[in-house]
Amino acid sequence: MKACFMSKRSAEVVFACAVFSLVFAGQGVCKPRVRDEVKIPDVGGYLTLACDFHMHTIFSDGRVWPEIRAEEAWREGLDAFAITEHIEYQRHEKDVRTNHNRSYEIAKGSAESLRLVIIKGAEITREMPPGHFNAIFLKDANALDVEEWRDAIKEAVEQKAFVWWNHPGWRGQQPDGKSIWYEEHTELYKKGWMDGIEIVNDDEYYPLAHKWALEKKLTMIGGSDVHTPTGLNYDFHTGEHRSMTLVLSKEKSEGAIKDALLNRRTVVYWRKNLIGEEKYLRPIFDGSIEILNPEVTIKGKGSAYVQILNKSEVDFELESAGEVEEISAPGSVTLYGEKVNLLRIRGKKEDVSGEKEMRLAYKVKNLWVGPEEGLRAELVIKVNLVPAKKK
Amino acid sequence: MKACFMSKRSAEVVFACAVFSLVFAGQGVCKPRVRDEVKIPDVGGYLTLACDFHMHTIFSDGRVWPEIRAEEAWREGLDAFAITEHIEYQRHEKDVRTNHNRSYEIAKGSAESLRLVIIKGAEITREMPPGHFNAIFLKDANALDVEEWRDAIKEAVEQKAFVWWNHPGWRGQQPDGKSIWYEEHTELYKKGWMDGIEIVNDDEYYPLAHKWALEKKLTMIGGSDVHTPTGLNYDFHTGEHRSMTLVLSKEKSEGAIKDALLNRRTVVYWRKNLIGEEKYLRPIFDGSIEILNPEVTIKGKGSAYVQILNKSEVDFELESAGEVEEISAPGSVTLYGEKVNLLRIRGKKEDVSGEKEMRLAYKVKNLWVGPEEGLRAELVIKVNLVPAKKK
Amino acid sequence: MKACFMSKRSAEVVFACAVFSLVFAGQGVCKPRVRDEVKIPDVGGYLTLACDFHMHTIFSDGRVWPEIRAEEAWREGLDAFAITEHIEYQRHEKDVRTNHNRSYEIAKGSAESLRLVIIKGAEITREMPPGHFNAIFLKDANALDVEEWRDAIKEAVEQKAFVWWNHPGWRGQQPDGKSIWYEEHTELYKKGWMDGIEIVNDDEYYPLAHKWALEKKLTMIGGSDVHTPTGLNYDFHTGEHRSMTLVLSKEKSEGAIKDALLNRRTVVYWRKNLIGEEKYLRPIFDGSIEILNPEVTIKGKGSAYVQILNKSEVDFELESAGEVEEISAPGSVTLYGEKVNLLRIRGKKEDVSGEKEMRLAYKVKNLWVGPEEGLRAELVIKVNLVPAKKK
Amino acid sequence: MKACFMSKRSAEVVFACAVFSLVFAGQGVCKPRVRDEVKIPDVGGYLTLACDFHMHTIFSDGRVWPEIRAEEAWREGLDAFAITEHIEYQRHEKDVRTNHNRSYEIAKGSAESLRLVIIKGAEITREMPPGHFNAIFLKDANALDVEEWRDAIKEAVEQKAFVWWNHPGWRGQQPDGKSIWYEEHTELYKKGWMDGIEIVNDDEYYPLAHKWALEKKLTMIGGSDVHTPTGLNYDFHTGEHRSMTLVLSKEKSEGAIKDALLNRRTVVYWRKNLIGEEKYLRPIFDGSIEILNPEVTIKGKGSAYVQILNKSEVDFELESAGEVEEISAPGSVTLYGEKVNLLRIRGKKEDVSGEKEMRLAYKVKNLWVGPEEGLRAELVIKVNLVPAKKK
Repeated sequence: MKACFMSKRSAEVVFACAVFSLVFAGQGVCKPRVRDEVKIPDVGGYLTLACDFHMHTIFSDGRVWPEIRAEEAWREGLDAFAITEHIEYQRHEKDVRTNHNRSYEIAKGSAESLRLVIIKGAEITREMPPGHFNAIFLKDANALDVEEWRDAIKEAVEQKAFVWWNHPGWRGQQPDGKSIWYEEHTELYKKGWMDGIEIVNDDEYYPLAHKWALEKKLTMIGGSDVHTPTGLNYDFHTGEHRSMTLVLSKEKSEGAIKDALLNRRTVVYWRKNLIGEEKYLRPIFDGSIEILNPEVTIKGKGSAYVQILNKSEVDFELESAGEVEEISAPGSVTLYGEKVNLLRIRGKKEDVSGEKEMRLAYKVKNLWVGPEEGLRAELVIKVNLVPAKKK
Repeated sequence: MKACFMSKRSAEVVFACAVFSLVFAGQGVCKPRVRDEVKIPDVGGYLTLACDFHMHTIFSDGRVWPEIRAEEAWREGLDAFAITEHIEYQRHEKDVRTNHNRSYEIAKGSAESLRLVIIKGAEITREMPPGHFNAIFLKDANALDVEEWRDAIKEAVEQKAFVWWNHPGWRGQQPDGKSIWYEEHTELYKKGWMDGIEIVNDDEYYPLAHKWALEKKLTMIGGSDVHTPTGLNYDFHTGEHRSMTLVLSKEKSEGAIKDALLNRRTVVYWRKNLIGEEKYLRPIFDGSIEILNPEVTIKGKGSAYVQILNKSEVDFELESAGEVEEISAPGSVTLYGEKVNLLRIRGKKEDVSGEKEMRLAYKVKNLWVGPEEGLRAELVIKVNLVPAKKK
Repeated sequence: MKACFMSKRSAEVVFACAVFSLVFAGQGVCKPRVRDEVKIPDVGGYLTLACDFHMHTIFSDGRVWPEIRAEEAWREGLDAFAITEHIEYQRHEKDVRTNHNRSYEIAKGSAESLRLVIIKGAEITREMPPGHFNAIFLKDANALDVEEWRDAIKEAVEQKAFVWWNHPGWRGQQPDGKSIWYEEHTELYKKGWMDGIEIVNDDEYYPLAHKWALEKKLTMIGGSDVHTPTGLNYDFHTGEHRSMTLVLSKEKSEGAIKDALLNRRTVVYWRKNLIGEEKYLRPIFDGSIEILNPEVTIKGKGSAYVQILNKSEVDFELESAGEVEEISAPGSVTLYGEKVNLLRIRGKKEDVSGEKEMRLAYKVKNLWVGPEEGLRAELVIKVNLVPAKKK
Repeated sequence: MKACFMSKRSAEVVFACAVFSLVFAGQGVCKPRVRDEVKIPDVGGYLTLACDFHMHTIFSDGRVWPEIRAEEAWREGLDAFAITEHIEYQRHEKDVRTNHNRSYEIAKGSAESLRLVIIKGAEITREMPPGHFNAIFLKDANALDVEEWRDAIKEAVEQKAFVWWNHPGWRGQQPDGKSIWYEEHTELYKKGWMDGIEIVNDDEYYPLAHKWALEKKLTMIGGSDVHTPTGLNYDFHTGEHRSMTLVLSKEKSEGAIKDALLNRRTVVYWRKNLIGEEKYLRPIFDGSIEILNPEVTIKGKGSAYVQILNKSEVDFELESAGEVEEISAPGSVTLYGEKVNLLRIRGKKEDVSGEKEMRLAYKVKNLWVGPEEGLRAELVIKVNLVPAKKK
């Protein structure tokens, strides 16, 4: 790309692979500017929106210009995002003028031209306790730049922000890496000033925070907290994705997302895991799976293949959670995402007959309904048992 | 990554995949922070240094913080780089204070901690003619911020910079996409103020500029001119690389690189092509290729495989440039990079015998000694011809 | 895998990644046995079945056991396949007993357990003219093993086979690589003994055969003609696929496939190209493409992005086939498969207003309705033109 | 590929991507036929040869023609291989004539044209005890086809074969998956009829066999035991490789390999692990690693990066095995194969000075000198400690 000297008016992100003389066409490939959707099914009448509400740019201690956050979000299949600059810490203040609203203002044009929902946010960045808190749906982030942390959070609440506690087990503030709930958190929680909690931040998962979220009915949040270009942190071509929050939303709009967050309709997508309430994980699993041949015939102790399409991008790791009387099924099986998978079942006796619906019980080890607790799920197959031929 | 609130003193780029509880170890992978060397052999007593002397950050119209340029350069196997901000154009001046030396100052720590040579540069950004010029090995880029373009270049020259004409065929300044050499360029050239010329900029190659470089003995330069994170522009996992200049340098130091540039010891690496003088491309080809079985036996009209290891990362595309009397060889063959390749040769007659050295003549279509003109090369094999058995 | 010494009764293909002690679980990955669907939409009430009716095993001159053909077909997303051994040539006859029906018999169990349609076939392998002919839907391939080629084809026809001419431009029989239509072909054609013709075989495309197919109403066939394991011939992980015939079939059954073939409802899938009649290619294109924001607003000479999801696996390469008065659109654009793509359109005047449906005309260069002739297609967008603000 | 009707005399494997008309050149890519070397350094004056001495073809219960085994071996970087058909079990005997030497005879031409060492072998396939035994360097495999297992092994020994016990913990013969050493094994061992033992077979590792190998001085063997095309079992593009034996051999010849096997100069390469005696694993590690900047300077509690090139293809997983007084180093670090890796070390005190050689002690978790016991290794760095500046 050349300097945009002649085209100063263009405010949006431009990624142009310049058209070049035909002689050289086909010589190489400029990386296409394409979007990979996050493939997790919609559930229960809600859209499953891929969102990341925690990231930084050069306006605090990040290392990219805000428009890049929009471009990355679009390519990675996000539907909505918030940039959350540290209010109290500008790493680059010698060179960059302080204005906590600028990231939002700058990224807004790029985001909207790409049809992304961008939400104004900020990170109230204090020592533990209470630690760092994100606030989104802000009107003016600069108003949070006050002396006392209680005043900062209060200001966010008065702006009707959605507020959550960030990385409660981060070693930078919890030296032994264990989340600790302080009195200050009780204070915030009781005041209704803490709507949610990060159970995932970047590459960290906090089992205690997960437990608290379930007990205290806090919205579960997962964020990338990315500071560099996302491509320096994730190997997208191997299927890696940033840590994110899936928001079950009535529509793709700021208002609907806020409604969903306030009503705790979220699932956290961390590495190969989906983490959330059973009432959301179950329909995600069921909506992802399609048994292509739900009726099979088995002769005696013979076998049959059940073909299972997993329409989602998540590889579901199943582990048996109970036996069926008449047939044996694998003790563990992975249903790879966007693939048709084989489940081989076998008859146990030579001399049986009859058609029967069988419910194969599994734990889905990487869909977590509680800390490291897999979702129970069933694969339902109609099996026609036929006696083996006499030899 | 968390905010670096507690560790303000750290000035270097930190990409940390935080250590997390063992329970979750192995659950996913944080992209490793590793370097892929550019695999092109050293030649003729020189080191082949991978260099990019043309890139931007938020201090002109780029969209990353300068440290990112060091990190990207290291990962992509560069040995040296220069950030060349536009002197005359700061896209982000509303938010970022103007200082043309800052990119260098900020990136210096990261670059040096990673053992990269960083060179101070700037882009004198004027309308055509004369267009844009890069100057590197500057002492003070701010001194180039003057009214007249001649004065700007003069200042660079007085600072003993190496100066070259950028993207001479860029459509932004050459509406029909054809490079035009103006009187102003003659003026600069005659004064000795133009040391080199970009024959490659980002995804563009300029055949006319290539011709001029050869005729006028200008150093051939190829630069990425990257404005965004490089990962948004290149698919590294498919083997793509940024456009760059290979500098044949006595050592890995700023001084040695300057000496190499002034003495035109460069090869431009663009897409799948290496572009340079024959005297450099030939040893690169010869140094890349190893014939693993240089002696083969062929019975009559039978065949034999010659195994050719290509130690470089470049896929050499060979096309026959002449026939050999006794044997036939493929009309075209690609010697894939970092692979052992097969060349199948066949006898032409049943009834011959004798051992003979054969020189298979090829054009290497993607090693350009002139505009789109492939290097002539030979594969030398000793063939032992044996008469076919009578049946 | 261990020898199946103890389990001789198992006749089906078993690809087992043995369960091993938990200590070592996760240490490595056994390639999952999964299926990648061929992602081309169904059209016009027909299923788009992925089929390969041309392949070999050790029973003629191939190098795999027949069950492998079923396993490969399943993994690669095929719905139906035929093994077509050479009747006249058994490369391995010293070791393998001759029986032209055995491939089918052996592969049948594997195919059916994987829910693939397997069709009995054979290749009548004669010198040119008339060259090689495939016949599928055979009852007894051994009956084709007769002296005269006319008798062999006659036998196939009497068995109600579907018969086609293979690789009409193969250099092994057409020394200059050009397809020649001999009198013998006219004879077969007039008798109704030639139902189709290969316009694609392995990596070859025959433009003349393509022309004949259209003129003479022959069913267009594309086959892999694979002899080795397919994985030695194709790089599946880069998106490569075997050459195949897409059959537009009322259902997934042998009978329905035969009906489709006899009625010329086929599209050939070769490399990045789909080749077929316009009446089938158009709905494939239209069914693949979804314009996510079919209504956009443009201010003056500003721009807007149209986001286009390509649900198919084919990258559609579009080239402009006409201009629109009010806006400019890219002269060429690739709509990558399984991605959301961006089409940037721009206003041509500052001072216009009004809402208008615009039909952007393109040639889809890799959907061939005739020899190398791209399908004409339109992208229909409603554009709301708004005057640019006065400054 | 077309039928090889006209070229019956060609006995070697031919993988031809036919040359096609220039019009369509570049349209797609036929998978190149290339070899990826196994990148493990030579050690101690020996060549490190990549070998697989356990595989099957259609002549027992495999599913490929023998030539495929040569082609796969070449592409996957093997130097030598043996096909080891079951003597007692021909799954395909209805179609394939019995001859235990045929695999070798058929594959020999392909192997030699590709410069691979092929060794004649067979698998004596008996019930447990003693289970299955491989014998290689046979003269006539058919002579092993005798009633009594002792006679079969005796015959192999008399042919001067190298004999080993296969998959001692295979569940097909060891129902609880645990290797059991029977009296019969003691008998064979005492007679000198058991030279080695598989500690790895396909995806299984047998810790008990590993222990026995060390105690009883049996040669450690790892084999793929592959029955299908290898590409159906391994995802080569993700870096997977077949299970194999690395033979430390004086030269690439059958004789030298036999000498190495008899003298237990082997290392087993299984998944991401190398398994062998410390005297071989240590030089492999040391020969793979190059510290690019073995001298670093640290200011006070500051840090420095040590850049470590891992020339091998194995990712070495290091875990700290001891602390150094003056500096802290990562508790765990992976040195990725064929990459430059960063090791960040930090000073512990602000006020120190002096230059010192430091030996960072690590366990290499995936180089096993005993069952799951990592090799101890040191990274030696010269650190120049400089007091931090007073602020």
